[in-house]
Amino acid sequence: MKVGFIGLGRMGSGMARNLLRAGHEVVVFNRSREKAEALVADGARVADTPAAVCSVSEAVMTMLADDHAVEQVAFGENGIASALPAGAIHISCSTISIALARRLAAEHGRRGQRYLSGPVFGRPDAAESKKLLVIAAGPADVVEHCRPLFDAIGRQTFVVGSDPSQANAVKLCGNFMIAATLEAFGEAYAALRKAEVGPHTFLDVMSTLFGSPVYANYGRLIADEKFEPAGFALRLGLKDTRLVLEAAEEYAAPMPLASLIRDNFLSAMAHGQADQDWSSVTRVAARNAGLK
Amino acid sequence: MKVGFIGLGRMGSGMARNLLRAGHEVVVFNRSREKAEALVADGARVADTPAAVCSVSEAVMTMLADDHAVEQVAFGENGIASALPAGAIHISCSTISIALARRLAAEHGRRGQRYLSGPVFGRPDAAESKKLLVIAAGPADVVEHCRPLFDAIGRQTFVVGSDPSQANAVKLCGNFMIAATLEAFGEAYAALRKAEVGPHTFLDVMSTLFGSPVYANYGRLIADEKFEPAGFALRLGLKDTRLVLEAAEEYAAPMPLASLIRDNFLSAMAHGQADQDWSSVTRVAARNAGLK
Amino acid sequence: MKVGFIGLGRMGSGMARNLLRAGHEVVVFNRSREKAEALVADGARVADTPAAVCSVSEAVMTMLADDHAVEQVAFGENGIASALPAGAIHISCSTISIALARRLAAEHGRRGQRYLSGPVFGRPDAAESKKLLVIAAGPADVVEHCRPLFDAIGRQTFVVGSDPSQANAVKLCGNFMIAATLEAFGEAYAALRKAEVGPHTFLDVMSTLFGSPVYANYGRLIADEKFEPAGFALRLGLKDTRLVLEAAEEYAAPMPLASLIRDNFLSAMAHGQADQDWSSVTRVAARNAGLK
Amino acid sequence: MKVGFIGLGRMGSGMARNLLRAGHEVVVFNRSREKAEALVADGARVADTPAAVCSVSEAVMTMLADDHAVEQVAFGENGIASALPAGAIHISCSTISIALARRLAAEHGRRGQRYLSGPVFGRPDAAESKKLLVIAAGPADVVEHCRPLFDAIGRQTFVVGSDPSQANAVKLCGNFMIAATLEAFGEAYAALRKAEVGPHTFLDVMSTLFGSPVYANYGRLIADEKFEPAGFALRLGLKDTRLVLEAAEEYAAPMPLASLIRDNFLSAMAHGQADQDWSSVTRVAARNAGLK
Repeated sequence: MKVGFIGLGRMGSGMARNLLRAGHEVVVFNRSREKAEALVADGARVADTPAAVCSVSEAVMTMLADDHAVEQVAFGENGIASALPAGAIHISCSTISIALARRLAAEHGRRGQRYLSGPVFGRPDAAESKKLLVIAAGPADVVEHCRPLFDAIGRQTFVVGSDPSQANAVKLCGNFMIAATLEAFGEAYAALRKAEVGPHTFLDVMSTLFGSPVYANYGRLIADEKFEPAGFALRLGLKDTRLVLEAAEEYAAPMPLASLIRDNFLSAMAHGQADQDWSSVTRVAARNAGLK
Repeated sequence: MKVGFIGLGRMGSGMARNLLRAGHEVVVFNRSREKAEALVADGARVADTPAAVCSVSEAVMTMLADDHAVEQVAFGENGIASALPAGAIHISCSTISIALARRLAAEHGRRGQRYLSGPVFGRPDAAESKKLLVIAAGPADVVEHCRPLFDAIGRQTFVVGSDPSQANAVKLCGNFMIAATLEAFGEAYAALRKAEVGPHTFLDVMSTLFGSPVYANYGRLIADEKFEPAGFALRLGLKDTRLVLEAAEEYAAPMPLASLIRDNFLSAMAHGQADQDWSSVTRVAARNAGLK
Repeated sequence: MKVGFIGLGRMGSGMARNLLRAGHEVVVFNRSREKAEALVADGARVADTPAAVCSVSEAVMTMLADDHAVEQVAFGENGIASALPAGAIHISCSTISIALARRLAAEHGRRGQRYLSGPVFGRPDAAESKKLLVIAAGPADVVEHCRPLFDAIGRQTFVVGSDPSQANAVKLCGNFMIAATLEAFGEAYAALRKAEVGPHTFLDVMSTLFGSPVYANYGRLIADEKFEPAGFALRLGLKDTRLVLEAAEEYAAPMPLASLIRDNFLSAMAHGQADQDWSSVTRVAARNAGLK
Repeated sequence: MKVGFIGLGRMGSGMARNLLRAGHEVVVFNRSREKAEALVADGARVADTPAAVCSVSEAVMTMLADDHAVEQVAFGENGIASALPAGAIHISCSTISIALARRLAAEHGRRGQRYLSGPVFGRPDAAESKKLLVIAAGPADVVEHCRPLFDAIGRQTFVVGSDPSQANAVKLCGNFMIAATLEAFGEAYAALRKAEVGPHTFLDVMSTLFGSPVYANYGRLIADEKFEPAGFALRLGLKDTRLVLEAAEEYAAPMPLASLIRDNFLSAMAHGQADQDWSSVTRVAARNAGLK
């Protein structure tokens, strides 16, 4: 398929490369051009603007940092909305608000363009090695049409609904589930340290009890207090928690555990941890127990 | 080894049977005698009182419902403390408070008896099939002496410290980790139902993301709203949460997520869910979102 | 002083009337003109647009429902920013976000106009009877220049800082303090009802203990469960709580009690209480205790 | 009336003195005898044991630190239960658990003795100056019989029910209401300090808005950070919060704000604040905002 890809950060580069590996014709754009050039060797063509990407693509995927960046690329000068041909598809893979997903669906629809949300679970190494989980939502025929693209970037594609924002809701709730695990580890480790049980001892038990790589990996990060370099920065964890709480407000569904997590992220921000890994939110529980 | 076993409920029966299978000489006691008789065919001898169990045992394991039951059996008339020979060992496998674990260690010590905590993770079927995780703590030589007993009842033994109460702290924190998962599922499912994403859809993603049997099994129970018969009754979940919060108070380590879980268990109690599975605590999040 | 007044709802009408009573020349504007006409008998002149108000005023006060309304009136077509003479002053009395207060200060400043925040505490009857508390912030000379206006509408004026957004922060935190009282009453009443102590009995004690009209009045509303008609609608209470939490995020100062209040407002929204008085948030605690 | 008084700490001494001033014949006991002797000049007689107090009294009031102290004096050797004549009355004014209040009612009843709960609101200076609020509960005729005693020690007596434990529930919920105020101040002050609004500025507004001595006094203590000497020690505040949560559990009425307060008291304990005034719990919010 002729596909555009905009946003070649640590996640996007791997995703674009896997599209190329799967045999798609890929035109790329990135604000700092050198990241785009880096994909030429893999077969990508480089465009000068988002609009230039659109003019030659059936579908354009975006993988950007936050709502603001997506709004700029979608609705700014030389943006996607201004240039995407009628019937062509914008697929937003970024972790954005459900409000923005709805606006994208509405604005593209108004222009005769089509829109899907396709956010992903996984870190940069998973993006590179095609191990992402892809959460797709949008009109069934459009999703099916794009399935080869989703399958090219991930190990499994989950279609969760016909309204694109449903994929964003699932993505945000998934990140919330992971953050809940971080918080639970933080509290248990802090209490146990005061009982003179070391975190690695508890981790051994939990790794076996849950049998989950997520528990094993994050449990170790936290036990080791290895929060730099960040795999996923705490300020982004705070952003995602804000987004899930915004969604909770729109759905009128209280999420008190998400509120607790948000408050702890804020305390971590106040202690200068914005650029540490989000698992360092567990330092808040430790501090509140008077540790270190 | 000559070992006694007191408390033959759904957990204890399986544990005692596995001690017999491993070749130990087992004397059993249960308040309602028929459960003890049921083990005779497997080679157990039945005693009339806890004291009678103790008089012929090097080690006595207890698996009882709560602090009160353990206190009765340990310190009541014809109880363990009154009859256990000097040097013999009481191993409490029940999920009890750290305060009681300390009292047991102190009282047995005063009498020249020895004490270990050996609480377990796993449901009755895991007890039967020798798949429990055993958390052991106490003086290192005593733990090593009893290792054959631990190995006989579980698939893995974790020695977490030399103070018996440390095993209870680990057990309580482990249950807290599971309860945190329940709460997270409850909030996410409720929000997503209002977004018209079904719980089974979200469960598919989470099962893959976490790759954990705990997530798969509890996630399904909750999605199916199959809360009866209870695998683990909600009132016991509340009890364990109370115990972890008591521990948190003793350690001066706040556990706000445990507090949140406790409050939701209380709301579930107020809605008549005491005997449903503890995963039904997720109905609180659903109700607070106005669902059903 | 020649003063404009925009926004003649239940609060604004009383405030504008008190400006007239104090001898100021007042030009008024309201989206639905009849509310403006109603003030003619008191001496007001009616303008056709916000811009028309500005052209003849040294200072223009706005008293509107929320950020959106203020943005429309300030920056929309025929809005204040487009028409306010250089050196003239916009005083926003609405309960708005600190972010919007900052934007107003910046945008007016860029145009050579001046800006103050002057939010108020008090209900419509207090606005009518000149019993509001006025919270003012902005450059000291501008605040002093406008003090006669503040003194005309309230019983006391508190100058809380030189950055206008500080007044908004104080107003939002004040509403949070009241909401905290509501939540505390809700929880205590629910527990005591289950102890068969009636809310009015507890209220008698609390009225005496705190000696506060806020406690006496809200305590009675809640004990009587008299939530309609709303003195202050629950959806507005939710809005203000959202704003205080946004402020908390900007300041990196966790407010877990505000988070709890927000979650309970959401639950109330989910149960159809948007247009009841915000004190009906206490029904959430009652429901969670299984009452009614 | 012939009345006994046991427990002559900072609260009890003032209360006993006011009984004497009202013309009652008072026999006193205190563990450290010199505090009892100090009342001889006011007309008190000193007894050597609680039992000796009982033998000459129609009613015996106790004002002790906690459940443990009350249990000792009521049920210990030479305790009240062993010596109080049939028909005589034990009035417990201490802040104790509802469980202990029930046990006192049952045990005294079994012995043909009578029991009332009569906890009080007020600090030592209020006890001295007869300004306490007295919360009384028990059988109506017994309460009426003892009303002269209640009226002698306080400025107002509230009869809240016929089950003594109801008075304890009201007392615990009242302390919770005050603690909620502390928490609200803590969070607001912390956020506002980061907005560069000083706590005294906010306090001015809140004092006027709430018009409550509780707000004015505690608000100033917290703004001044004057936490020593303690008017009411933080570890006692934690105890009372534990008791209100125990009551909440018995009533199956979740009190999430009480849970939040408990967690913050625990954090304060972990930071060595046990003997500071309980209003120093507000330092937890400040620390979580990265202040100081």
